[in-house]
Amino acid sequence: MLIRAFVPAHITAFFVPKFDEDPLLAGSLGAGINLSKGTNVFVSIEEGLERHIHIAFNGAPVKKENAVISYSVASEIIPEDFTGEIGIWQYFDFPNGYGFGNSGGGALGTALSLAFAFKEKTFLQAAQIAHKHEVLHKGGLGDVIAQIHGGIEIRTKPGAPGIGVVDNIFFEGYKVLAVPMGRLPTREVLDSDVVQLIEKEGEKALNRVLSNPKVEILMKEARRFSERTGLLSGELLEIAREIDKVLHLPSSMIMLGKSLFALLNKNEIEKAKSLLEDLSIEEYHICDVYPQRPSVERWIGEGT
Amino acid sequence: MLIRAFVPAHITAFFVPKFDEDPLLAGSLGAGINLSKGTNVFVSIEEGLERHIHIAFNGAPVKKENAVISYSVASEIIPEDFTGEIGIWQYFDFPNGYGFGNSGGGALGTALSLAFAFKEKTFLQAAQIAHKHEVLHKGGLGDVIAQIHGGIEIRTKPGAPGIGVVDNIFFEGYKVLAVPMGRLPTREVLDSDVVQLIEKEGEKALNRVLSNPKVEILMKEARRFSERTGLLSGELLEIAREIDKVLHLPSSMIMLGKSLFALLNKNEIEKAKSLLEDLSIEEYHICDVYPQRPSVERWIGEGT
Repeated sequence: MLIRAFVPAHITAFFVPKFDEDPLLAGSLGAGINLSKGTNVFVSIEEGLERHIHIAFNGAPVKKENAVISYSVASEIIPEDFTGEIGIWQYFDFPNGYGFGNSGGGALGTALSLAFAFKEKTFLQAAQIAHKHEVLHKGGLGDVIAQIHGGIEIRTKPGAPGIGVVDNIFFEGYKVLAVPMGRLPTREVLDSDVVQLIEKEGEKALNRVLSNPKVEILMKEARRFSERTGLLSGELLEIAREIDKVLHLPSSMIMLGKSLFALLNKNEIEKAKSLLEDLSIEEYHICDVYPQRPSVERWIGEGT
Repeated sequence: MLIRAFVPAHITAFFVPKFDEDPLLAGSLGAGINLSKGTNVFVSIEEGLERHIHIAFNGAPVKKENAVISYSVASEIIPEDFTGEIGIWQYFDFPNGYGFGNSGGGALGTALSLAFAFKEKTFLQAAQIAHKHEVLHKGGLGDVIAQIHGGIEIRTKPGAPGIGVVDNIFFEGYKVLAVPMGRLPTREVLDSDVVQLIEKEGEKALNRVLSNPKVEILMKEARRFSERTGLLSGELLEIAREIDKVLHLPSSMIMLGKSLFALLNKNEIEKAKSLLEDLSIEEYHICDVYPQRPSVERWIGEGT
């Protein structure tokens, strides 16, 4: 049997990390956007005499130690008495480590596919397992719970799915420009003094968006957060300023990656494209907001 | 401008009512199914000199006192300084009072459409307003929070959206047969001695489904609940037993309406249809489970 799950890429606009001994209580406050591109996970299951779990990223097999989150998730969801071959094929639309929530997407897609296949865990039980291993192995704090809600989201209470609270804001007519430009080691940032500034500015941004829940406010607060924390600086800030010249809303930085994002209305798409061409930026994505929950189904081919 | 929201019909399989002075803490535990048919709400907004709210059910205008839930929801979401004509057009695929969550669908559809139009409330703020007026005016306790999640749902913590917790169970290959046969005054049931039995049997059913989260268990527990509480009896029970003869899972009663439901796999659809014909039951619906969140968008016509 072959199961397919789609989990949207999730980009964070601003955040407040919330650490806790209990991984189900750890999480983050903040806001972000779920994209129509993201992670597709295919899970193949064949019964047999021995139990084996194989994981591949973008078609290339990876060792257990390089896919420890998905491997831990799978080990916990596959029933103890199952023997046979399980293949977990993860395909990412965005590069790893650039701030697109690939780790959460892989973990959650794996969890939902296996829970769907074996039908021994509920949706929240599966999502909690994905969240737990994301937190334990420092894949992320808030991606999984954001990804199960879709849309443009605000995390108002931290924690795992079923414990944290995620709200959505209404929007209309926007596409998302995403420009992945490089990796940013999350751990380095979270282990530094910047954390206090992130907490202070993140809380401020969250309160302002909650009291006036509009995407226009969200983008202004995102930009303010990224500059005040010093995370958006140097060349990345220069490019953000160039993008701003052709858009009516400020662009901002994806937390945490050396990547930029912006909201575009219909009239701004061509302007943004030609600007990026002028800047010799070749890799960029223009996608929709993914408004729904992740999908999971038995795969019987396209066009059915 | 014209906004359209679709909210799935929600049928309850078993439940435990949870009353509370605070309507945001009131709610229910239990399980139910969101259907691909339900309530479509169209909201038309035209600015003008005076503020008027008009509500119509299935095309026919209704007085304020006969649509007090939707009217209260609208009054709270439309900004105070708005003047003009607001039309709220609610269309129901199922009859009112038969247990299909029409009241919650109308309230939630109204809340989401207006929040989308004015963009001053978040998704959860709008859904909480719908839940609050549902509870205050005894429209329902758990429909709104179930409807925002979609799917086959289990309510594991009572309360309004953002406070209560709703889980989902995975399923595959089932359609839902719904047979609306009559009204059942919810208040009469909830004000009677049956409530204690409902609480006891509802908790039992919930725990059993949570420890083995499969739709097959859910249907068995739903049927046990409906018979042990004495709610499913007489002619309705006789019809349920007839339906059981052609299906592999037990049918059950929709809480609270004189209505039945069952899960059908592909091979059972024709058998169910010819049985209902033999029983001279003309009104029945075969629909899909609605797996997603309610939709809300600016209406620009079909096929776009």
